Amino acid sequence: MSQPVKQARFNLFIYGAGHHQAAWRAPDSPAERLGETAYYVELAQVAERGLLDGVFLADGQAVAPEAAAAGPTWFFEPFTLLSALSQHTSRIGLVCTVSSSFYTPFHAARMLASLDRLSGGRAGANVVTSMWDAEAQNHGRETLGDHAYRYGRADEFITVLRQLFGSHPAAAVQADREGVFTDPNQLSRIDHAGEHFGVRGPLNIPDGPQGAPVLFQAGASAQGRELAAAHAEAIYAVAADRQMALDYAQDVRSRAAAAGRDPQALAIMPGLVAYVGRTLEEAKDKQRRLNDLLPIEQALAQLAVFVQQDTHAWELDAPVPPLPSAAEFTGPAGRYATILRLIEIHQPTVRELLGLLAAGGGHCTVVGTPEMIADEIELWLDTGAADGFNLMPPNLPDGLADFVELVIPELQRRGRFRTAYEHRTLRGHLGLPMPVAGGALAQAR
Amino acid sequence: MSQPVKQARFNLFIYGAGHHQAAWRAPDSPAERLGETAYYVELAQVAERGLLDGVFLADGQAVAPEAAAAGPTWFFEPFTLLSALSQHTSRIGLVCTVSSSFYTPFHAARMLASLDRLSGGRAGANVVTSMWDAEAQNHGRETLGDHAYRYGRADEFITVLRQLFGSHPAAAVQADREGVFTDPNQLSRIDHAGEHFGVRGPLNIPDGPQGAPVLFQAGASAQGRELAAAHAEAIYAVAADRQMALDYAQDVRSRAAAAGRDPQALAIMPGLVAYVGRTLEEAKDKQRRLNDLLPIEQALAQLAVFVQQDTHAWELDAPVPPLPSAAEFTGPAGRYATILRLIEIHQPTVRELLGLLAAGGGHCTVVGTPEMIADEIELWLDTGAADGFNLMPPNLPDGLADFVELVIPELQRRGRFRTAYEHRTLRGHLGLPMPVAGGALAQAR
Repeated sequence: MSQPVKQARFNLFIYGAGHHQAAWRAPDSPAERLGETAYYVELAQVAERGLLDGVFLADGQAVAPEAAAAGPTWFFEPFTLLSALSQHTSRIGLVCTVSSSFYTPFHAARMLASLDRLSGGRAGANVVTSMWDAEAQNHGRETLGDHAYRYGRADEFITVLRQLFGSHPAAAVQADREGVFTDPNQLSRIDHAGEHFGVRGPLNIPDGPQGAPVLFQAGASAQGRELAAAHAEAIYAVAADRQMALDYAQDVRSRAAAAGRDPQALAIMPGLVAYVGRTLEEAKDKQRRLNDLLPIEQALAQLAVFVQQDTHAWELDAPVPPLPSAAEFTGPAGRYATILRLIEIHQPTVRELLGLLAAGGGHCTVVGTPEMIADEIELWLDTGAADGFNLMPPNLPDGLADFVELVIPELQRRGRFRTAYEHRTLRGHLGLPMPVAGGALAQAR
Repeated sequence: MSQPVKQARFNLFIYGAGHHQAAWRAPDSPAERLGETAYYVELAQVAERGLLDGVFLADGQAVAPEAAAAGPTWFFEPFTLLSALSQHTSRIGLVCTVSSSFYTPFHAARMLASLDRLSGGRAGANVVTSMWDAEAQNHGRETLGDHAYRYGRADEFITVLRQLFGSHPAAAVQADREGVFTDPNQLSRIDHAGEHFGVRGPLNIPDGPQGAPVLFQAGASAQGRELAAAHAEAIYAVAADRQMALDYAQDVRSRAAAAGRDPQALAIMPGLVAYVGRTLEEAKDKQRRLNDLLPIEQALAQLAVFVQQDTHAWELDAPVPPLPSAAEFTGPAGRYATILRLIEIHQPTVRELLGLLAAGGGHCTVVGTPEMIADEIELWLDTGAADGFNLMPPNLPDGLADFVELVIPELQRRGRFRTAYEHRTLRGHLGLPMPVAGGALAQAR
């Protein structure tokens, strides 16, 4: 008997009119609809028709006027939007980004548990540390704090979340008309008193159907990888190519093993920007048409933020000037490492680098037929570079429709993707174990 | 030509299996359904069929095991639940309680604006200061702080909310494919640096259809009344009878006038517990059946919390022992004043007082036929005691159905209540003006 082949997992990362920064400028883009609930409902329903594991929303706590001028940034707040989407879908997971720098863990745990109940067990949490001082300045602090502070806080935040899930088990609700509504003996204080948070507990909502929402993490720096290895059940990784993904996966799995976890009990899902065509030419044409919409000046300005250098004098059709090594760089590490990697792989001109960055910001880009893309996906799965992907369609809704209508059926033909949902919860879709009540995630490792 | 008669406004205050503490113990209660979204959807839809102005959710940041044993307390988190309900309703308002003690104003403003967009302009915010140290202990503080601290913070919180609404006007979103997505010149920093909060702004979501969600307030203490008079567009008041409501309304309106506002531009909506029967006997029987479900020991324990005295030695069928005056009392003022008033009005035994408190905790209770209740409502409207009511059905869903099926048609026959929704927003239902962009609510006074 042959081994069953490894199955792919997919989230749809919903962002604006698509992950290509110029997608909203296309004549047929949904630019006018980004403030309408129905737009997001339609995306989630297409993703669910495609049997994807989840939809994924990023988040940020500030809007920069120059970024808002260049294109869509944040619109709906993710907890409220996902709660609305939960009522228009029945199976697909709903992954909400939560900043450990700005939420108290009690608020976050409560909203996650509430979303989990509203959705019948489909909530996930993508815990991030946030990136910009402007975000801190909306929440009473001048700066975000350094890497060590942010990740120390994130680690404590997740530790408290884990304790809060399980502090009010669903089984405590007895509704015994002659006795108690809730069995008070099943409620536990957590009495957490840490460096960043003080939380008495118990949580004031009974655990949802998953026990605890699925915990995602997205760290790329050394501290981020440690955090992911220590806590995450699924990881949204950044990898420009399969080798980078493999290096990342091996590193995080070995860190997880060192932390005493099963290194295979982690769903690693890098971002994937796919241009899908019935022919390679059609796919390339889709990419070119989006790239042609890109205002070069704005793209250069964004690159300046990523590399923390003045780029406006760089020559567009000359090779990218030498950049400091990752070790010398003091800004956000993940994106910068990706840029160095893109330069190493492609030796691009400045203009070519802008094209690579404009969609997905340096996540892996694939351009091709459904067969070519399915080949690539199979290779990533079979070499251990990924357990699935966080899909970042360059344009929405069309880029999503292309993937669902063309790539998903090809993967199904190859036995690489479900042909019907087999579970009702996100935890079920991803093949993750239930946390043990009381010990929460820590027990489920 | 005769003057048009004053119209009633109604919110449905959804709480557990109803506002009578023993309602969940009835054999046909929805006690098992309080963790199901569908239960709340059904309530909101019945309220919308009744053309009510809004549904109203209270909130608290902690669960006391003894309270959870005695009956349902908090279940769903209100922002997430109301976001879900927004997708099953189309006209009714959605009022979310928000604690100024535990949210940053940026989080609160953002979620409110998001709910306002999800619902097409139906969001309201009921800003509270919270009541218990146990809540503070879930958010990193030992105590809630004294009245002055809490209300100072609430005042600053609301001031910041007002500035954030308007900092990112919907008109800033241009989606001009040849130009900007958002006009950066229409985004405003607010650069608030106060005693409790520092907020740079702008808000990272464009204003919703109402400009700013409708601002409710519920303060009963002197500081609470000042806050309501300074800021609220609608007030959830506590009044055991019409005289108490009138005193409250006159006091708050005179404080509003002193603050330079139009004292009539405030919708004052006391809580109302209505037992409705086709005959008076049927209504009384409904009340008696719920009262008979009440465990006396638990009711005494709750009374002890409200009066901050040991009550378990009080004789049930003797008059309530003398209590300290409101001026001598240091706990939450609103509930205590109500208890003193109930004692003054009814001269009740301890057992009778427990019966009065068990449903709605001392809000006005009416028991009667639709005609009797409509008479009472008209009297409150015409004497200036109320502009409407926050309905607190003693049992759900039946107490709501009684009101919608029996009292609403009677009020409609009398020309006291709409026979169809005339507006799409909560602000429209309540007859409140739109805030002016930029100046937000302050300009709309």
